[in-house]
Amino acid sequence: MKALVYQGPRDVRIMQVPDARIQESTDVLVKITTTNICGSDLHMYEGRTNVEQGKVLGHENLGRVVEVGPAVRRVKIGDMVCLPFNISCGFCNNCERGYTGFCLTLNPGVAGAAYGYAGMGPFQGGQAEYLRVPYGDVNCLVLPEDASEREADYVMLADIFPTGYESTELAGVQPGETVVVYGAGPVGLMAAYSAYIKGAARVMVVDRLPDRLGLAEAIGAIPIDDSKASPVEQILELTDGQGADRGCECVGYQAHDPEGHEQPNLTMNNLVRSVRPTGGIGVIGVFVPEDPHAADRLERNGRIAFDLGLFFSKGLRMGSGQANVKKYNRYLCRLIHEGKAKPSFLVSHQLSLDDAPEAYQQFDSRQRGWTKVILRPAA
Amino acid sequence: MKALVYQGPRDVRIMQVPDARIQESTDVLVKITTTNICGSDLHMYEGRTNVEQGKVLGHENLGRVVEVGPAVRRVKIGDMVCLPFNISCGFCNNCERGYTGFCLTLNPGVAGAAYGYAGMGPFQGGQAEYLRVPYGDVNCLVLPEDASEREADYVMLADIFPTGYESTELAGVQPGETVVVYGAGPVGLMAAYSAYIKGAARVMVVDRLPDRLGLAEAIGAIPIDDSKASPVEQILELTDGQGADRGCECVGYQAHDPEGHEQPNLTMNNLVRSVRPTGGIGVIGVFVPEDPHAADRLERNGRIAFDLGLFFSKGLRMGSGQANVKKYNRYLCRLIHEGKAKPSFLVSHQLSLDDAPEAYQQFDSRQRGWTKVILRPAA
Amino acid sequence: MKALVYQGPRDVRIMQVPDARIQESTDVLVKITTTNICGSDLHMYEGRTNVEQGKVLGHENLGRVVEVGPAVRRVKIGDMVCLPFNISCGFCNNCERGYTGFCLTLNPGVAGAAYGYAGMGPFQGGQAEYLRVPYGDVNCLVLPEDASEREADYVMLADIFPTGYESTELAGVQPGETVVVYGAGPVGLMAAYSAYIKGAARVMVVDRLPDRLGLAEAIGAIPIDDSKASPVEQILELTDGQGADRGCECVGYQAHDPEGHEQPNLTMNNLVRSVRPTGGIGVIGVFVPEDPHAADRLERNGRIAFDLGLFFSKGLRMGSGQANVKKYNRYLCRLIHEGKAKPSFLVSHQLSLDDAPEAYQQFDSRQRGWTKVILRPAA
Amino acid sequence: MKALVYQGPRDVRIMQVPDARIQESTDVLVKITTTNICGSDLHMYEGRTNVEQGKVLGHENLGRVVEVGPAVRRVKIGDMVCLPFNISCGFCNNCERGYTGFCLTLNPGVAGAAYGYAGMGPFQGGQAEYLRVPYGDVNCLVLPEDASEREADYVMLADIFPTGYESTELAGVQPGETVVVYGAGPVGLMAAYSAYIKGAARVMVVDRLPDRLGLAEAIGAIPIDDSKASPVEQILELTDGQGADRGCECVGYQAHDPEGHEQPNLTMNNLVRSVRPTGGIGVIGVFVPEDPHAADRLERNGRIAFDLGLFFSKGLRMGSGQANVKKYNRYLCRLIHEGKAKPSFLVSHQLSLDDAPEAYQQFDSRQRGWTKVILRPAA
Repeated sequence: MKALVYQGPRDVRIMQVPDARIQESTDVLVKITTTNICGSDLHMYEGRTNVEQGKVLGHENLGRVVEVGPAVRRVKIGDMVCLPFNISCGFCNNCERGYTGFCLTLNPGVAGAAYGYAGMGPFQGGQAEYLRVPYGDVNCLVLPEDASEREADYVMLADIFPTGYESTELAGVQPGETVVVYGAGPVGLMAAYSAYIKGAARVMVVDRLPDRLGLAEAIGAIPIDDSKASPVEQILELTDGQGADRGCECVGYQAHDPEGHEQPNLTMNNLVRSVRPTGGIGVIGVFVPEDPHAADRLERNGRIAFDLGLFFSKGLRMGSGQANVKKYNRYLCRLIHEGKAKPSFLVSHQLSLDDAPEAYQQFDSRQRGWTKVILRPAA
Repeated sequence: MKALVYQGPRDVRIMQVPDARIQESTDVLVKITTTNICGSDLHMYEGRTNVEQGKVLGHENLGRVVEVGPAVRRVKIGDMVCLPFNISCGFCNNCERGYTGFCLTLNPGVAGAAYGYAGMGPFQGGQAEYLRVPYGDVNCLVLPEDASEREADYVMLADIFPTGYESTELAGVQPGETVVVYGAGPVGLMAAYSAYIKGAARVMVVDRLPDRLGLAEAIGAIPIDDSKASPVEQILELTDGQGADRGCECVGYQAHDPEGHEQPNLTMNNLVRSVRPTGGIGVIGVFVPEDPHAADRLERNGRIAFDLGLFFSKGLRMGSGQANVKKYNRYLCRLIHEGKAKPSFLVSHQLSLDDAPEAYQQFDSRQRGWTKVILRPAA
Repeated sequence: MKALVYQGPRDVRIMQVPDARIQESTDVLVKITTTNICGSDLHMYEGRTNVEQGKVLGHENLGRVVEVGPAVRRVKIGDMVCLPFNISCGFCNNCERGYTGFCLTLNPGVAGAAYGYAGMGPFQGGQAEYLRVPYGDVNCLVLPEDASEREADYVMLADIFPTGYESTELAGVQPGETVVVYGAGPVGLMAAYSAYIKGAARVMVVDRLPDRLGLAEAIGAIPIDDSKASPVEQILELTDGQGADRGCECVGYQAHDPEGHEQPNLTMNNLVRSVRPTGGIGVIGVFVPEDPHAADRLERNGRIAFDLGLFFSKGLRMGSGQANVKKYNRYLCRLIHEGKAKPSFLVSHQLSLDDAPEAYQQFDSRQRGWTKVILRPAA
Repeated sequence: MKALVYQGPRDVRIMQVPDARIQESTDVLVKITTTNICGSDLHMYEGRTNVEQGKVLGHENLGRVVEVGPAVRRVKIGDMVCLPFNISCGFCNNCERGYTGFCLTLNPGVAGAAYGYAGMGPFQGGQAEYLRVPYGDVNCLVLPEDASEREADYVMLADIFPTGYESTELAGVQPGETVVVYGAGPVGLMAAYSAYIKGAARVMVVDRLPDRLGLAEAIGAIPIDDSKASPVEQILELTDGQGADRGCECVGYQAHDPEGHEQPNLTMNNLVRSVRPTGGIGVIGVFVPEDPHAADRLERNGRIAFDLGLFFSKGLRMGSGQANVKKYNRYLCRLIHEGKAKPSFLVSHQLSLDDAPEAYQQFDSRQRGWTKVILRPAA
């Protein structure tokens, strides 16, 4: 089958690879109809990870079930399904408690498995014609009858919608609160969107790219351009000097200042200063335990110079980590189905699988207007 | 009246000061019968804060009500009361939600007020004969009829028992879980004790002072001597390589390695490595937003080199800050009253107020056997 | 001053009564500009309570502070304030934990006090020119600068908006869930409105009065007319036979069937059948511990024939009681201020205080179009 | 194989039945070494259910894995395992959220499946030599290495320990609180025991059988004999007239007064009067949706005359239902392993499988001293 394969830094190609197929009796085989390029794919693309050559990328996947293993009970051939990016067993200590992003079974020795992802196990990704889904009854979200007409919305349930949503959960967003989101990339926009879904009174989104800030404004958020003035001061001014009730980190370790210098602690420390005492912070932007090629000395060991003193004196809380997609995807799916959420608003490009290498290049360069790319392998 | 007064670094003296008295109609005046020296008093004693000369220290106070303002309704003359170290109004946005450690009223411009404490407002401490208690109906825990016989237990409700307890709340300790506590000072011991109260299956306590480790063992915890081997490795070995479910930071910014070098990030990063994926960390050891005289360059600005990459990849959560004593003191009081908790087990010395300067010196030098000092101003 | 006074069953009059005035140093005096008639006022109006003759009614009050006692610190003369219907001390065991609807101080022997309400203490109501507010710093929600222009919205913060909201809290409504509300009176409509604020995917509202069902539909809910067919069957059909995730009881003990017969267990048992296994029910419609004149034998003793067997086998949960207004009013206020909530949509009449007796009569007879009456004593 | 088979009311026999065996690739086969008789087995024994003739009873099971289906990954032959009484799939909407007592997959049309239980699906029980365990990776709790030596403790993880524990969860028990448990049968004793594990300050247990009250006292609870005086008055007296913070219903629909008359609403209404305003109630005693042969008219339809008026005016909350064993069994298992919990304290008899019919008869007659029976099929 045809698939997008990682060959090395900034080198991804469409190639023929062995067909995905049922390997275990609990597997499901899905013909992919929509698969996205994610911001975290760019970490691999840029060579900032140890992903192996030959890996098929793609962890935001949606398609039609074409085969099921004999032990599969719930999922049926023909079902349209969206696959959480993290793969889970459903029965380990973490999965049992809803922490399906930290499955202890599927990637032995590491808490968490994913499709087509560095360090997340041997699973191939879905930027391909077919995808093998382990523990299909656990890992398939069966979509409602309008799935085919709204794939661009439903595919966001694989990752960025629940991920953005989880940042608001980790931050503890409650109705009527004020929220600041750092980063207006796809996940940051989904965080802002989720905060409003949960009843936030006001959401502020910090970025500097005009097209992203424009999308933030379009969903009702207050855009804050950190290239024009200190984002912290802008936020304090908007909140009578108090700071926001909650903050979401949707940038990660590759944060850089408006001049373009990478500064891994930039958004975290800005958040500590932007959030009011007793508030909460949700960290969903990726930070890595080591980053050998980083310029920053601390960052090489996965560290940041963190304002813990201020964090403590404000009595802040923070939660972090890859989203536990299955905690939310059923319910966010219903919001899409009922017309209460249309996360496709941030899609800028819908391309064929063959266009993927070009799309990676454009998306990686933050080319204006390339906010979110959807690929259609079956088209 | 007689009081212990801060005169400068390592210089505290018993002096005559103006009598504490009712100033507002909501005040209560308490004759102090028991008042403790707290580990955080030592930050001031050592000159690591900007506390003003002339300050009466003492924020762990218990005594008898001798006068009440005309607007006081609940508290009566003659009541034995224990005073939460943080002073709160009961009606601001933070107090209303139970965050009485971050009161917005009593120390304008700062979230949080306390007796006899640097940066916590103009309130005098209770290492004295009398104490003025603002908003007496809010700030007095009226003790049960056996108060006088068990002052050494009940006085712990002012600070270290709820503070240790809150570290287990912030960490999210649940029955049956495994908990690691860094620091076997009074707060750390109270954290370990609280973890068992909440049903922890196993508690490990890291320190290196034999008397402290001995007390940890005496309450059923597993003592871990970090001067003998890596505490992280010891914890991983005790938990089948998984790490503890929850961790409590009860050391703070003056953490130092077994050789005695201050290393402010030592316990935090050890905790990140000691706690298992999806776990939680409660930070109750004090970290400060600036520390101009610190040796460590980052610490001067209240920063630590923090393993955020590992924290994120494990999906950890952490909460921090001064304890909201009033959230817990009523209920911990009942445990003492019912004989289910006897926090006085860690008291090593019960002295007169006149002995306080000597006690500060001994306690500050971590003199063997000086685990917790109680002063009796009325004796 | 002028006030609406209860004289006996279905007999309320505008009379001259002694001026409200500051009685305690913690009191605040408010000149009432807006005060509503509540559905629960009708229980008193109809003679179904033991409210004493001479009581000034009115517990949904908003106005301007004209005097403050000497111990009041936060609230200032001139502030526009909205008063939670339940009066609380801020320092008792219940208030401390946020249960301000069950204050143990202000109405000794009963948990809970309120303005102008049967069994809720000696406090006069606000359907009058002035209102005395005990513990003013605790009981005044200071409104933002646009208060005067939007009194019809902000006054809903005194009771029905937080009350409707609390039913969704007690039911446990989460984003993406399906909610059924029994009763489209003002509280039921606020419950449905709150469910959407919190991100419900779908809200169904059961009633039989066309004007009320019309308002439900106007805010996006699915109206269910229980005079046309079984509401339970309609709900099951709308939810693939599963039932709603959550249910809100907003009717109370005077529930009656479409033929007009009072049947106190009607909505509770319908809810048990309408909500799916593991779901939750919030009961905010008033049930009373005794009702001596009731036709129903059980109801006389405050009992209902309740389907506990089905409740148990479905593993349901329920919470109940008068709303703890202060838990929510600050945050709902912000939603109004930011334009995210406009609860005045259900106001049908804005009248002068003199029109109150006539309004009681019309509202009590469920006269078509009389959904919610606002009185303007200062107009 | 040999098994205890239900033949009709009060008629259970040891018979030869077809061997339990692997039927699905996800099954596990367990050789039973310990299996208990549960109080809820008596509902079937007494003919109060529609359980079918030929059913093998027994839902509290522990044994050794002797065979695993090809799709089983985590559980290994030779593992000692304890089986939650409710069988769950791990992937339905309820199981995903931890509600494994309400699995939607295994007993289609009903939420919840169990071994050897009326209305809970076609699954045979474990009062037999072997037991088939569906979805073995989901439904086996693998026990630690000391399992064989402490089967009488670990077997309680199948049902009564987590069930008693869940009543405290549903009631919302927090450290330092006062708890009343109605019913000192095995589940009630486990509720009291769990309340102490969670840090309750005081637990009161209501019953009238001396041996049961003796066991309650032995674990530190205050025994309350309701045959001597009103339990409500005794509880109010013990709590300064306030009532307990939390209450647990561990009796169910067959509650009877001291004279022996069945009165299904007895304990529920006593609880409403025994628990203080804002408190919580956990209902884990079984109530059934219909009970055609009941003497009580309401009970025939699964109803009770419930004091909802008082419940509401106190602002109470309650949760109910069969325990979701998997939420707790891992953690309670650790408490046993660490020696912090020894639930076998309530075992009165350890018998061979052949003795089961006699044991049913004795246990059903509440014969003095028959508190809990353990059967040893492999002995």
